[in-house]
Amino acid sequence: MLTRIDHIGIACTDLDATVEFYRATYGFEVFHTEVNEEQGVREAMLKINGTSDGGASYLQLLQPLRDDSPVGKWLAKNGEGVHHIAFGTADVDGDAEAIRDKGVRVLYDAPRTGSMGSRITFLHPKDCHGVLTELVTSAPRPAEEH
Amino acid sequence: MLTRIDHIGIACTDLDATVEFYRATYGFEVFHTEVNEEQGVREAMLKINGTSDGGASYLQLLQPLRDDSPVGKWLAKNGEGVHHIAFGTADVDGDAEAIRDKGVRVLYDAPRTGSMGSRITFLHPKDCHGVLTELVTSAPRPAEEH
Repeated sequence: MLTRIDHIGIACTDLDATVEFYRATYGFEVFHTEVNEEQGVREAMLKINGTSDGGASYLQLLQPLRDDSPVGKWLAKNGEGVHHIAFGTADVDGDAEAIRDKGVRVLYDAPRTGSMGSRITFLHPKDCHGVLTELVTSAPRPAEEH
Repeated sequence: MLTRIDHIGIACTDLDATVEFYRATYGFEVFHTEVNEEQGVREAMLKINGTSDGGASYLQLLQPLRDDSPVGKWLAKNGEGVHHIAFGTADVDGDAEAIRDKGVRVLYDAPRTGSMGSRITFLHPKDCHGVLTELVTSAPRPAEEH
């Protein structure tokens, strides 16, 4: 069961400049950064609020590592902007299977590793009214990294 | 100060079909519906979670009332998908003024009426790394409508 908006994924061409925009304009601070080679991105997570299921909602700023990565190709076509939305669940495996059974294409056979050790999968945007949709199960972790 | 992800605004061509997709696929129920003539949309709010500032995060599904409305023109160009993101604040007037002073274009001279009696304004996407960004101050209201 999906219990929160986990994050909004925003594709950008210059991660450092985009992080600085969000800090200078709104006061949002970086909670976590990492490079995800499998996803082909360098990313920064900005924690915006806690959520009623005990999790949190983030902005995820994504810069592609390579032009031929999925986010790189998306940026070349669309320019900077919202790339995907992500819902949090305690059971990404079970929810992905249930959603696949409803006829929505799930992009991975099994969940892969997302931000901060989470397990993630994606749903095909053409089956979701144009929205690339991610499902996330967070890793157990301390509430604050910084 | 922006204290939550208030909503993700998603443009669609058929509101009823899109509401039904979110219900059937994820179990998300409609919290509120309305027509906003000034914004030129018919909309449904799906409440996803409560937030640590005492508010909530929603999906806002938007169908344009007219092809020549802002959302109608956006849909014709982009197809269905994420139209904007919105941050909640207790003081949309003060935050909009502070953000304008930083050189980001604020689209309204004064906040207008948004969903559920909220007061809203928008920031120019070209000044926000491609993201049409809304600021929202909720109206005082009961926690549950349905």
